[in-house]
Amino acid sequence: MRKGPPSGVLVDQLDTPALLVDLDALERNIQKMTDFFAGRPAALRPHAKTHKCPQIALRQLRAGAIGITCAKVGEAEVMVEAGITDILIANQVTGEIKIDRLTELARRCDMMVAVDDAANVQALSQACRAKGATLRVLVEVDIGMGRCGIAPGSAAVELARAVSGAPNLQFLGLMGYEGHLVLVKDPDERERRVREAFGLLRDTANQLAAIGLPVEIVSGGGTGTYDVTSDCPPVTEVQAGSYVFMDSTYCGVRPEFEPSLTVLTTVVSRPVPERAVVDAGLKAMTKELGWPRPLEAEAASLRYLSEEHGVLDLSAPEAVSWRPGDRVRFLPSHCCTTVNLYDSLHVIQDGRLVEVWPIAARGRSQ
Amino acid sequence: MRKGPPSGVLVDQLDTPALLVDLDALERNIQKMTDFFAGRPAALRPHAKTHKCPQIALRQLRAGAIGITCAKVGEAEVMVEAGITDILIANQVTGEIKIDRLTELARRCDMMVAVDDAANVQALSQACRAKGATLRVLVEVDIGMGRCGIAPGSAAVELARAVSGAPNLQFLGLMGYEGHLVLVKDPDERERRVREAFGLLRDTANQLAAIGLPVEIVSGGGTGTYDVTSDCPPVTEVQAGSYVFMDSTYCGVRPEFEPSLTVLTTVVSRPVPERAVVDAGLKAMTKELGWPRPLEAEAASLRYLSEEHGVLDLSAPEAVSWRPGDRVRFLPSHCCTTVNLYDSLHVIQDGRLVEVWPIAARGRSQ
Repeated sequence: MRKGPPSGVLVDQLDTPALLVDLDALERNIQKMTDFFAGRPAALRPHAKTHKCPQIALRQLRAGAIGITCAKVGEAEVMVEAGITDILIANQVTGEIKIDRLTELARRCDMMVAVDDAANVQALSQACRAKGATLRVLVEVDIGMGRCGIAPGSAAVELARAVSGAPNLQFLGLMGYEGHLVLVKDPDERERRVREAFGLLRDTANQLAAIGLPVEIVSGGGTGTYDVTSDCPPVTEVQAGSYVFMDSTYCGVRPEFEPSLTVLTTVVSRPVPERAVVDAGLKAMTKELGWPRPLEAEAASLRYLSEEHGVLDLSAPEAVSWRPGDRVRFLPSHCCTTVNLYDSLHVIQDGRLVEVWPIAARGRSQ
Repeated sequence: MRKGPPSGVLVDQLDTPALLVDLDALERNIQKMTDFFAGRPAALRPHAKTHKCPQIALRQLRAGAIGITCAKVGEAEVMVEAGITDILIANQVTGEIKIDRLTELARRCDMMVAVDDAANVQALSQACRAKGATLRVLVEVDIGMGRCGIAPGSAAVELARAVSGAPNLQFLGLMGYEGHLVLVKDPDERERRVREAFGLLRDTANQLAAIGLPVEIVSGGGTGTYDVTSDCPPVTEVQAGSYVFMDSTYCGVRPEFEPSLTVLTTVVSRPVPERAVVDAGLKAMTKELGWPRPLEAEAASLRYLSEEHGVLDLSAPEAVSWRPGDRVRFLPSHCCTTVNLYDSLHVIQDGRLVEVWPIAARGRSQ
């Protein structure tokens, strides 16, 4: 089997396609978000679904994050193995096997999980009792995204009451995700709608307080909305994740963070002057939020991605010297799904490879 | 670390999301394609990019395939490690590192590779000489897809001449891929256009024969076109791959094969009667050829996929009993890119797990 490249090699000596992260840009992004939360009432619990990489989660914690957020049990398992002890799984965990894995984690560290269903609350409680585990629980409320979450108001209150009465579960508060608002371009409209959405959580929290169920934690937010969300009482925790890498989509919304993630490719064909083809297609880059952007030539743009090929149109062929074997880097349009295609991150500093970090929490579905 | 599930468990006891292949359907598809090629002048060299799985490649070879096709060096390395000795890499291999890996393989077994560039021919020749290896070479000709490949006619003839004069390279013939035609719905139109496209290869082959460069191998074709392509002299080899798994897209074009590949998911939320959410989003299913299709309920259809969620609209909510924890299987819309998201294939027979096959050739980019 091939070995990985040694530390210190130049970027141009890496084989492709490879996922690169610029270490300095990554650390500046982590520091900038940490600085933002310093002295504010809400805290940062960054979402690890973006990077799925314990080395980055540990950097976020060392910088001052209060814990991490995961999308699923498989991610949380990897983070616990890496020594992380305070994790929110920001989804409902269902089915006997997954609930068993979750309670196993809850025996080892502080696990918090979202629920939106009364039968699930009972199933979690029973599993925890059988294992002698305790789970901290947030009730997920639909604040307008229309995906998961129970309706705000009386339905959420009733579910919170069920949680608080269930053995081995500890009702801690509410979660809402304004995923439908994180990419709203106009900052004023974004702010107005985010405040409206979290107003629903505030009203629900007030109803809970009135019946003697105080809400300690309210979790929400993303990279597109962290500044407003953190200023929407009773929000206590913000789940932003993409800020570590950014991408062409988020750069249009949050210019204060830098793109740190790129895909390194090699030209495999330049069959005619106005077309070049690289060795990264749909199996190496994603396109659900738009085409990845080639960085080395203004005149180049992706026409399409097939499975293993990225096909570029060159509008000024004479200005682009690419020949087969030359390198082209791309800025992804969606960092989270792009990372999910790779097994490792090549960490780059000053044009050289510093380390290779396993994307250890990918592919942990089964 | 978690262990995999034991052989013999019921499908419903598998954790999710999981990629399932029905062993009987897979074997019927392999047998049907083998039977088609029996006694025909063209032979089957199935494309392994679809499954990236040595266990399936070995089944195809045992059934009668003459070798396999790979998209890239990383796939070929895995197949060689599994004992496969006759491989076409159906793309140009560029850059010093990849060419070095290719020549390493060429020392160990019969490697054939595509070229469309004179400088690449020289680079391959030099690398082979340095290693004492020999590479068999096909000139890739653009037969209308507009991706890779040199123009048919005199340009292709000139490149073939360069290959035949290059030390340690053996000119064997031509390759063309009619990727722009494999999904044409109307069979008559598909046939007419495929015959036109391979007419370009026939003319080029005739020109080569006229200058004393006989064309031994002509490779092309896919699952959408295998029947016509195999009947287009001088085609000698067909690269079909998707027929092993099929998907909702190919089922509309080639009903003679069965869908054998599904994604098993779990309902994580049913927040309102008319909506259900499963634990498989863009990181577990692909959508570039359309939405994956839920199999268990007529009234359900995907509205969208976010990263970790598949959101389903239920047009007749009362007819769908799904609750959190229930299972839903999906038929992918594109088998090749879906397989690329998983590390292993769960092989199912009569509703039980038989084996787990690693998708060993995925993630081998760097």
